[in-house]
Amino acid sequence: MEVLVPFSTDRPKSRLSDVLTSDERGAFALAMLRDVLDAIVAADGDPRVLATGPVASDLHCPVDVDERPLTPAVNAALDAHFEGAADGPVAVVMADLALATPAALRALFAAGREADVAVAPGRGGGTNAFVVGDPAFRVDYHGASYLDHRRIAADAGLSVDVVDSYRLATDVDESADLAEVLVHAEADAGGAPGATTSHAARWLRDAGVSLDTSSGRVGVARE
Amino acid sequence: MEVLVPFSTDRPKSRLSDVLTSDERGAFALAMLRDVLDAIVAADGDPRVLATGPVASDLHCPVDVDERPLTPAVNAALDAHFEGAADGPVAVVMADLALATPAALRALFAAGREADVAVAPGRGGGTNAFVVGDPAFRVDYHGASYLDHRRIAADAGLSVDVVDSYRLATDVDESADLAEVLVHAEADAGGAPGATTSHAARWLRDAGVSLDTSSGRVGVARE
Repeated sequence: MEVLVPFSTDRPKSRLSDVLTSDERGAFALAMLRDVLDAIVAADGDPRVLATGPVASDLHCPVDVDERPLTPAVNAALDAHFEGAADGPVAVVMADLALATPAALRALFAAGREADVAVAPGRGGGTNAFVVGDPAFRVDYHGASYLDHRRIAADAGLSVDVVDSYRLATDVDESADLAEVLVHAEADAGGAPGATTSHAARWLRDAGVSLDTSSGRVGVARE
Repeated sequence: MEVLVPFSTDRPKSRLSDVLTSDERGAFALAMLRDVLDAIVAADGDPRVLATGPVASDLHCPVDVDERPLTPAVNAALDAHFEGAADGPVAVVMADLALATPAALRALFAAGREADVAVAPGRGGGTNAFVVGDPAFRVDYHGASYLDHRRIAADAGLSVDVVDSYRLATDVDESADLAEVLVHAEADAGGAPGATTSHAARWLRDAGVSLDTSSGRVGVARE
């Protein structure tokens, strides 16, 4: 399955500015993108990065550059998919799903082969990933896009399946979200943080960002 | 399956004090408890509330009162389960999982019949729900309890399965979490908020709490 991964190279992850500098945010965003691409390939998806500008040359997948905002860029990419030679549905997976696993993505892809639209909602009413097999579907990422996308699908008479995954619901936007990256990388590595295969978690550790369990909800601290 | 639902009657949901009064927080916590109990029954679980004090008499399930903090109260209840006549595993599901669905709970219960411990992590490293079939397992809800519980299980030689569910990962603690209740109640009701079967969402609507999509991440506003 073709899997589009939108990636912003223009001031990425600005809401992490309380913990990371501008250059660091760019490097961390790239580490998360690598994790997402790895998970897609492991789930037998064919990733294609949809970037707003030039990105690292060692991503081992096609990169299309489209400077437009997210919504028109993704709609144009959906058009290109359905007008092109490739058959079947197409997926769109956000580049900041640092917790995405091959299993979670496989469940999404499978749901998208059954329903016209399969959607993985994100925290705060976002749309973190979806699969669509019908050109009548359009995206609109503004506001509570999960509700908007359900409405757009219903208005077009398309069947919808919702994929219930914490891994896919967790987009990494704010410093509290960094704790999610560290917690689950540590858990997945069997309690040995150094053994993680997560590029994002390794990047955070190298930058001196660690879990802070001193207060109620777990956060992060930086050396 | 026996399903314990810890419920605090002592200043519940204090982190919602920016939106709700003390009495309102108690009423809202009870509405969420009703949703959780409904979902457990629909998933063929047998709920038992483990409360710190007297609760509403119309919950249609057994209520045990234990004034102790969460960790010793749950450990004592686990002991009582494994020393009692009931066979098989026992589940512990938090009372503030207002988004819990029968499908998500069924997946948890099924995982808990295969592994020694099945756990649904919560946001911020919490443990929102688990199933255990072995008396060697103990809870410790302090700090990043998800990591602690994985360690406790590993130290006891118990197999662990992790249940990846956004529904079960979403405990409702802060005002931003109220948006989750409203978004998913509306989506589940096919875009008609008035048609929701969620006690918690109906309670919020009646209290004048509604979605606020005016800024980036979706929040709530109150009349």
